[in-house]
Amino acid sequence: MKIALDAMGGDAGPGVVCEAAVDFLRKNTEAMLMLVGPEQEILGLLRDVDGGSEADRLEVKHAEDFIGPDDEPARAIRTKKASSMVRCLRALREGEADAMVSPGNTGALLVGSMMILGRTPGVERPALAVEFPSIWKGSTLLLDLGGTTDARARHLCDYAMMGITYAREVMDRAVPRFGLLNIGTEENKGDQLRLKTFPMFRDLAGAYDGCRFVGNVETRDLMDCPADVVVTDGFVGNMVLKTVEGMESALMEIISRAATGSREASDEDASLRSLMESKLKQFDYRNYGGAALLGVRSMVIKCHGRSGRQAIANALDKAYRAAVTRVPDRIESSLSERSESV
Amino acid sequence: MKIALDAMGGDAGPGVVCEAAVDFLRKNTEAMLMLVGPEQEILGLLRDVDGGSEADRLEVKHAEDFIGPDDEPARAIRTKKASSMVRCLRALREGEADAMVSPGNTGALLVGSMMILGRTPGVERPALAVEFPSIWKGSTLLLDLGGTTDARARHLCDYAMMGITYAREVMDRAVPRFGLLNIGTEENKGDQLRLKTFPMFRDLAGAYDGCRFVGNVETRDLMDCPADVVVTDGFVGNMVLKTVEGMESALMEIISRAATGSREASDEDASLRSLMESKLKQFDYRNYGGAALLGVRSMVIKCHGRSGRQAIANALDKAYRAAVTRVPDRIESSLSERSESV
Repeated sequence: MKIALDAMGGDAGPGVVCEAAVDFLRKNTEAMLMLVGPEQEILGLLRDVDGGSEADRLEVKHAEDFIGPDDEPARAIRTKKASSMVRCLRALREGEADAMVSPGNTGALLVGSMMILGRTPGVERPALAVEFPSIWKGSTLLLDLGGTTDARARHLCDYAMMGITYAREVMDRAVPRFGLLNIGTEENKGDQLRLKTFPMFRDLAGAYDGCRFVGNVETRDLMDCPADVVVTDGFVGNMVLKTVEGMESALMEIISRAATGSREASDEDASLRSLMESKLKQFDYRNYGGAALLGVRSMVIKCHGRSGRQAIANALDKAYRAAVTRVPDRIESSLSERSESV
Repeated sequence: MKIALDAMGGDAGPGVVCEAAVDFLRKNTEAMLMLVGPEQEILGLLRDVDGGSEADRLEVKHAEDFIGPDDEPARAIRTKKASSMVRCLRALREGEADAMVSPGNTGALLVGSMMILGRTPGVERPALAVEFPSIWKGSTLLLDLGGTTDARARHLCDYAMMGITYAREVMDRAVPRFGLLNIGTEENKGDQLRLKTFPMFRDLAGAYDGCRFVGNVETRDLMDCPADVVVTDGFVGNMVLKTVEGMESALMEIISRAATGSREASDEDASLRSLMESKLKQFDYRNYGGAALLGVRSMVIKCHGRSGRQAIANALDKAYRAAVTRVPDRIESSLSERSESV
């Protein structure tokens, strides 16, 4: 299995990407990696990292151009054929790689994946999914986070099937429990979209043994969630994720200002501070290990532009796991199984 | 000005409500209050509180029944004529009181307000608005929080006008800045509802001097918000508010578990803890001082069922302020002014 890694588009530059690449290869001794970006620069950076024994599983594919955060997505994909992102997507399409990770422009990655890889048969709208951390332990797959802004009930059903497959193959949940994000737990709660989706989710769970429907899930329960997979539309999902992000960064700022204000902090303050910081860092989406783009023909993972070494290495782990378990193929077959059962 | 206070429906029972009533009268020396609930019980509770010199500004209106949290809203309003909530609403309609506060069943209060008071002319859908606290100082009026689940662009425009009026009259913002809650700040971001609403908000600000449109506002900026009023639909607003609530209570639990681990901390040692607790408590919606129901003919404030003495007293202050400044009348005239200018 070979993972294509877009070396460009991250805020920290390709150096951090090269470090993460070597970390990943050291951990996954069967994996291969294709680093895509400016060849001479990358080779220089790799010499600094001392890839040593991993060098034979690491290839560099040259790309002289890259797509920046302000590039208009569709236009960039069409015109920047020599960009690292387009080269990664083409490598996937040609079978030169089995999955990819990119810290680049989200919109371009979405559009490029649909244009170059194509949608999974049966899927109208791809979705972005993140493993949202529990405050205590474990995590919940939350989707869609903004792959699509105006979703319909049948799209939410596709998201549920895709999320269930991902949770089973990548997150080790044998029989994933899935729920519908809503403003109340009762069946009659919600807007028209939720009211229409609820019975379709129940039917889906009835027709398909490999999952269990837990009903509606409220956002206040996301921190300690009763489901493995929580489905919502991309507009709401994006709003909820950014609410968490805003609260996380506001509280981190409070802690850091408090630290500056009281230099003689006691041990207890210091221990609470480090506890709060570690808990809050869980909710910093830069550390999630990337968002999986589900519903396209190959496995594509978007990591945040501000990702550090650890976050990129985590995203590579997820991509590798998803490639080994053939998540895109399994999504395709679960969707065709469903359409046969209807 | 007389405020009707529903003594029933709060989790803490009528005792806390009576305490809050006396606190309110002591603070607002011109105000009058009508306590609505079981007369003998309330009179007994008031003797315990020692209302003393406030007694002449406090009347008790008997109501032998009450609407519980599990009552079906429309049915409860129709059948429980002798409930404290219905008696409060009727007192408003008959002009016996100028505003009301209730900690009872939210759905019943919404339905009851529409059935008994009626909607403000020009308003199709009422909205629930809370003063969302900034992490540093000040607050932002966020609406709708679930008054309506499927809103259209023209409803969001009504919310904007209502919120602007409330912010000016009750929150002392001379020229309120208002924004549209969205997934990005650029004009072309969002779902169909947001794309349709954005230019309507710009036109509204152009036609009406008393406000300023700041564009789209992201949920991650709510904690330190660039607007006085932020408008969204009730489904999204409810999701966002409950996300904050879930994160607040999860973090409070982390702090309290950490505290249990170190019982011998001195008072000075606990400074970061008390800082975090006080900041997080801001985001506990039980302390917000209630949600204002905007778009009905009188001023109705819903406070949370779990409200304590301080929260109910805060809600009474808001109701009094809104009654003195005649918020419902001003909402009506701002809406008719708008329809004349179109």
